[in-house]
Amino acid sequence: MKYQALNFEKKLTLFDEHWAPKVIAEMNDYQFKVVKIKGDFVWHNHEDTDETLIVLEGNLRIDFRDGYVDLSQGEMFVVPKGVEHKPFAENEVKILLIEPRGVLNTGHEGGERTAQNDVWI
Amino acid sequence: MKYQALNFEKKLTLFDEHWAPKVIAEMNDYQFKVVKIKGDFVWHNHEDTDETLIVLEGNLRIDFRDGYVDLSQGEMFVVPKGVEHKPFAENEVKILLIEPRGVLNTGHEGGERTAQNDVWI
Repeated sequence: MKYQALNFEKKLTLFDEHWAPKVIAEMNDYQFKVVKIKGDFVWHNHEDTDETLIVLEGNLRIDFRDGYVDLSQGEMFVVPKGVEHKPFAENEVKILLIEPRGVLNTGHEGGERTAQNDVWI
Repeated sequence: MKYQALNFEKKLTLFDEHWAPKVIAEMNDYQFKVVKIKGDFVWHNHEDTDETLIVLEGNLRIDFRDGYVDLSQGEMFVVPKGVEHKPFAENEVKILLIEPRGVLNTGHEGGERTAQNDVWI
């Protein structure tokens, strides 16, 4: 039996919308999500968990209250739990998110930018 | 303050040995490890946890008792907990492993192929 690998590029062709993470896999109670983002987001934090971002294509900046980090393809960053952050991308960037099942994109801030959770592709 | 992204390619230049995972980051109680592998490994499983493999460069095959999966750059696979598997790479392949802190590369099999755990670069 031949099992199927998960291909990030193929998964990313399945949708166009920004700021709407799509689940592609689970490891224990963690989820892997692909997401396309462009422009500015809201300040938010995840009170109960760290959050990992891996850039698959493009450039991402994450602002913190005391600084920022620039991420390019092949780079990752772990945002510590409770730390306020705001992602920004001048041009579209494709990202792999890794975080526990149930984490919302806007963390504990909520609001109109909150995406539907647990959407699989 | 400018924070530093973790760059997979740069981390992979820091060592040459095969089958010796190096920790580059933690998310909660999970670790991200880069590893270079070439050739055949031992059959093993991780009784208590799933294990995620993302191919950063090269080609990887993972054999299971009932089949196999082929992985190339930009592809991932989650090996379910308890499932026996054996990685194989004809040529060197560079991988990102994601699994809970404390997981050994040989799982519960042990033996001479067991690498030192929790080595950071």
